[in-house]
Amino acid sequence: MAVALVSTAACADEGMWQPSQMPLLSDQLKARGLEMDPAALSNLAGKPLDAVISLGGCTASFVSPKGLVVSNHHCVYGAVQYNSTPDRDLLTKGFVAKTLADELPAEPNARIYVTQEIGDVTARITEGLDGLDGKARYDTVESRSKALVAECEEPGGLRCNVYNFHGGLQFSLIRQMEIRDVRLVYAPSDAIGKFGGDVDNFEWPRHTGDWGFLRAYVGKDGKPAPYSPDNVPYQPASWLTVSQQPLQEGDYVMVTGYPGSTDRYRLPAEVEQAIDWRYPAMVAYYRESLAEIDRTTAGDKAAALKYASTVAGINNVLKLYQGNLDGFAQMDNPVGIKQAREDALETWLAKRGKQGRAKLEAIRELERELAAGRAVRERELWFGTALGGGLSGTAVSLYRNAIEQAKPDAERKSGYQDRDAPRLAGSMTAFDKRYDPKVDQALMALRLQRYASKVPPSDRVEALDRWLGITATDKTIAGLDTTLDALYAGSKLGDAETRLALLKADKAAIEASGDAALKLAVAMMPTVLKAEQENEARAGRISALRPQYMEAMIDFNQSQGKPVYPDANSSLRITFGTVNGYSPRDGVRMTPFTTLDGIVAKTTGKDPFITPQAELDAIAAGKGAQYRMASLGDVPVNFLSDVDTTGGNSGSPTLNAKGELVGLLFDGNYESLSAGWIFNPELTRSIHVDTRYMRWVMDEVDHAEHLLTEMGLPND
Amino acid sequence: MAVALVSTAACADEGMWQPSQMPLLSDQLKARGLEMDPAALSNLAGKPLDAVISLGGCTASFVSPKGLVVSNHHCVYGAVQYNSTPDRDLLTKGFVAKTLADELPAEPNARIYVTQEIGDVTARITEGLDGLDGKARYDTVESRSKALVAECEEPGGLRCNVYNFHGGLQFSLIRQMEIRDVRLVYAPSDAIGKFGGDVDNFEWPRHTGDWGFLRAYVGKDGKPAPYSPDNVPYQPASWLTVSQQPLQEGDYVMVTGYPGSTDRYRLPAEVEQAIDWRYPAMVAYYRESLAEIDRTTAGDKAAALKYASTVAGINNVLKLYQGNLDGFAQMDNPVGIKQAREDALETWLAKRGKQGRAKLEAIRELERELAAGRAVRERELWFGTALGGGLSGTAVSLYRNAIEQAKPDAERKSGYQDRDAPRLAGSMTAFDKRYDPKVDQALMALRLQRYASKVPPSDRVEALDRWLGITATDKTIAGLDTTLDALYAGSKLGDAETRLALLKADKAAIEASGDAALKLAVAMMPTVLKAEQENEARAGRISALRPQYMEAMIDFNQSQGKPVYPDANSSLRITFGTVNGYSPRDGVRMTPFTTLDGIVAKTTGKDPFITPQAELDAIAAGKGAQYRMASLGDVPVNFLSDVDTTGGNSGSPTLNAKGELVGLLFDGNYESLSAGWIFNPELTRSIHVDTRYMRWVMDEVDHAEHLLTEMGLPND
Repeated sequence: MAVALVSTAACADEGMWQPSQMPLLSDQLKARGLEMDPAALSNLAGKPLDAVISLGGCTASFVSPKGLVVSNHHCVYGAVQYNSTPDRDLLTKGFVAKTLADELPAEPNARIYVTQEIGDVTARITEGLDGLDGKARYDTVESRSKALVAECEEPGGLRCNVYNFHGGLQFSLIRQMEIRDVRLVYAPSDAIGKFGGDVDNFEWPRHTGDWGFLRAYVGKDGKPAPYSPDNVPYQPASWLTVSQQPLQEGDYVMVTGYPGSTDRYRLPAEVEQAIDWRYPAMVAYYRESLAEIDRTTAGDKAAALKYASTVAGINNVLKLYQGNLDGFAQMDNPVGIKQAREDALETWLAKRGKQGRAKLEAIRELERELAAGRAVRERELWFGTALGGGLSGTAVSLYRNAIEQAKPDAERKSGYQDRDAPRLAGSMTAFDKRYDPKVDQALMALRLQRYASKVPPSDRVEALDRWLGITATDKTIAGLDTTLDALYAGSKLGDAETRLALLKADKAAIEASGDAALKLAVAMMPTVLKAEQENEARAGRISALRPQYMEAMIDFNQSQGKPVYPDANSSLRITFGTVNGYSPRDGVRMTPFTTLDGIVAKTTGKDPFITPQAELDAIAAGKGAQYRMASLGDVPVNFLSDVDTTGGNSGSPTLNAKGELVGLLFDGNYESLSAGWIFNPELTRSIHVDTRYMRWVMDEVDHAEHLLTEMGLPND
Repeated sequence: MAVALVSTAACADEGMWQPSQMPLLSDQLKARGLEMDPAALSNLAGKPLDAVISLGGCTASFVSPKGLVVSNHHCVYGAVQYNSTPDRDLLTKGFVAKTLADELPAEPNARIYVTQEIGDVTARITEGLDGLDGKARYDTVESRSKALVAECEEPGGLRCNVYNFHGGLQFSLIRQMEIRDVRLVYAPSDAIGKFGGDVDNFEWPRHTGDWGFLRAYVGKDGKPAPYSPDNVPYQPASWLTVSQQPLQEGDYVMVTGYPGSTDRYRLPAEVEQAIDWRYPAMVAYYRESLAEIDRTTAGDKAAALKYASTVAGINNVLKLYQGNLDGFAQMDNPVGIKQAREDALETWLAKRGKQGRAKLEAIRELERELAAGRAVRERELWFGTALGGGLSGTAVSLYRNAIEQAKPDAERKSGYQDRDAPRLAGSMTAFDKRYDPKVDQALMALRLQRYASKVPPSDRVEALDRWLGITATDKTIAGLDTTLDALYAGSKLGDAETRLALLKADKAAIEASGDAALKLAVAMMPTVLKAEQENEARAGRISALRPQYMEAMIDFNQSQGKPVYPDANSSLRITFGTVNGYSPRDGVRMTPFTTLDGIVAKTTGKDPFITPQAELDAIAAGKGAQYRMASLGDVPVNFLSDVDTTGGNSGSPTLNAKGELVGLLFDGNYESLSAGWIFNPELTRSIHVDTRYMRWVMDEVDHAEHLLTEMGLPND
């Protein structure tokens, strides 16, 4: 009965579709208002898809023939920070390069990836896997993937990755051009680009100017090259056209980008576990962690500063996890929703003879494997967490590094290969900045107490219990303070030079060390490695079963004429829907556009609600009337749509029915947090910055008129 | 620029109009959609106005030829409580009389007032006042009003009151029939009638079933009579017809009722004082009072219980005051709004020759009087507050009573006349239930400290400073605990019998008493009386000036063709507008209807969000489809309109364009709290219960079908 009073769209559109699926969706696309040939949306080599690019973690797009790239402010933030100094504070002041020569090199690891090819490598990955046991299967898939990547990549120019769709039913090899000379062209000030900050994160109404511009540079030969002043702007085959048609409520929109990860096809028991166990357990643990940090940094400003970013990170994850729980709570029986889908599938399979029975058997087997995993979940979580950070985590990393360095590079664990060395050294150097021994000790005590109180006697880690001086049935740890005092007093890993030196130490040297933290790591490592092997074996067994489940799911849906989109996996997807508000509760409707007027209303002059005086003046003067939306009587700032997006989609172009750029996706509403598991069409909404606000700021506040001209847009 | 996206009405309609003004508003009424002759809305003797009645503090209406009365649940609550016993808990279970014989006598002081005549008595009140000084003027108006009332009233049948319009520019004598046999017919359970309780008070979205039914009974001669089983239902000349047309967003609605009091024509300095001084001072004081009650009742359940209703009362006033401040803060310079009106008026007056200059002089004089009042505001407030409650307040009341009893009844202060004796005795009896000496002492300490710290030396009360053992320049009170310990130890006024005996004591007896609290009262009384005389003299002087200001205001508006409605004064008014939501902030819209679905979503099973199982079942079963609103797909529960109402309007009938009953007004939104001073058309909204919800509950949950039939309505 909960129907929004002013709903212009009948229903939101779930689905992060592979481009190749678009022709299957012709009818839906037309019904929603698409005014292009759906086939154009499967063509990776044509507009608009070949203009959609990746920054690695964020999506972006070309918007001019001279390699101008637009993405979110928070996606180009690294480049802004890298170029900021106390004397030239680009964060606060923003930055506009007036000419190509003024454009600033982005941080050294900034990349622009242009997708060139998506090839199906399912056969090459899965051939002959059937006879293998779990661990062997896991290892084979890993090594075949590595081989395919090695065969495809060209260092310094092409990057390749294998993507797993439908839990291993389908594998794609995706080849991307890797542009390494990336320059910062324009970023508004933090006051515009981060307006609302953490307070407004995941919230509507929203008023964030979340855009930034880069430019892709290549060698004079047109090929990717490292930064050089001689490089020239890359000339993309296509670039997006910025719309000059007024976008309205109810209009068709689509988002093309690289969504990271979703869990839409999990079994009911997996959803139940997330709701009943994992999220509540982690929420409680993070809350206690925050309280411990609060307690131990009280009155110690230096320590508080060291943990500021840890606290911000925990708060962000807490909001995500709590948002999941709140979202589930708003659904009428989320596990039941999955169970109903499951029941329908199984009823259908039961009528499909031998083939159906085989699939049902695979599902039962998958459930057993998942149940086996759940049986040891407390140990998995709390033993992993106990050694998962701070001093003890550093000790484990150093020892593991020494173990892996003894192997040939290709056989080493990911994270310890040659290409990972700079990152590992960097994190060992930076550790001090986020470490205070008394805070770390309190957090480790909290984790160890969790371990002792949560892990049942049958699953306890003997080596850890011994180190703690307790038995497997002890739920509390007597004398923990003394044990930890000795650990922290007996370790020199708090010292950066010691850590960096140990990165070069071999296995034997570490095993012989008298450092208390390293001794703990050495004592725990056999259990760590055994657990890892067991996990990989289970993952291997599951990787033989989950594809069968997904195959059944796809066949079942196909029998009803419904295509099935795969869970997000950071590969290129398209999602479509309409500009649409929502009703968070009876009697309240979130309207789909915010306005300049709302910026003024939110502005307090205190972070994160500061607005530049130039912007306030431009608003007060009513400047830029041409960007106004008639029905609002104001310039639209952000808008809502019911397209289906998730993390990784940040910076994605939002296109109208003609494929023109109308916005940039940058967030989802609070109610969308649980959409990773279940897409609730009534409440799940994506948040976009409207290109009219972007153009208004560029024209009236930041004076980036030359970029508007470069994009073919008029300006004052 | 803040225009709601889906606004169907151009603008809300400010104005609580006198019925006689309605013909002046014909054009506006027709533009809003009225489908009746506006002249019918000035006829007190015809439908609908003669069906609109007062319960004294609440509004109600006749809805059947047999004297059936509908009002708010919270307006008939006294009758429900009066008839509830532990064995027959009508509060929890609700009550439906199946026959006339089952109807229950309401509490003894329940009354129904039917307005019969409104006469202009301005000349009789104001004749020859011009030569009088302030105090004489005040006293003359008082005594002439009393004489008019005495002349008009017929004990036991007709009640008369003099109403002051426009600050004394116009006086009306209103005669009402006083029906004393009032019976409870139907009230839903608290779970429906108080759904949302204090949490939802002044809030939208709202889901309260705030209706209740009474019946007016008279003697067999048709005249008012005390309760008797022989009495018969009163037969009103008119009664309202309940609409069967679906009310929609944007539809015309009007509310007829008895709004209590507003301050719309205050001078800028008066608004400024409310914003800058009175509300903040009282908010801070009430917050500290709550903290003191919290502190002193901690761990003492009996004391906490005694102060539960005090705490509830303070919280209610706090919400009202804070809501005023929040409302002012949302306005762009509220004092400036008043100042602009003032400037326009004065500019116009300045061009009006001698007459205009005289009015300007009167305004200056009014400002001087108000400024003189402001000069002593700290003493007025904090000396008044210091002795304004608890033990000391009781002592002052007892002594004042003895002083007044020595005078002839007609000359006594209101509150101490013969007719007040039962109420005074009642409050002296009930005092114990809300009194705990240690809490009262802490609150008195708080009030005295406020007095010492806030009242400047020049305005200090010498007698109080002496009693406190401080000088006029002391900002703190040394030894206050000792002083108060002695006061509380030395008084027996905590004892009910002592208090009741003292009600009969004469002035001399009280002055001779050794009771510490009475001694304090005796010591303070000369200052109390002197301040009262000064106040009345100032009120008298202002009463000569304010009418001149209002006359100028009316003339000025008349010159622009605009009628002026008087501030609310508990007399019958009409306000009109449309069903309309609002946007509390950019990107959010409060939609104007709530639904059954929203009740389910709010229901937690814990007070105040309990829903009767029968109602949940009826909702789940989709019963009563005929009450559904097509555009909602659900039964509407409450709705918003932009009509202009205030306290006293509770229970008022909400009528559609044809004058049919579509709802009952029962509250305003939070943003409306500051509308007592300034009506903000974008944010001020009234909240009504929809008659469709009322009928749905009567039909499907409470089985009051016979009442639907009595009102001429179909039912299942």
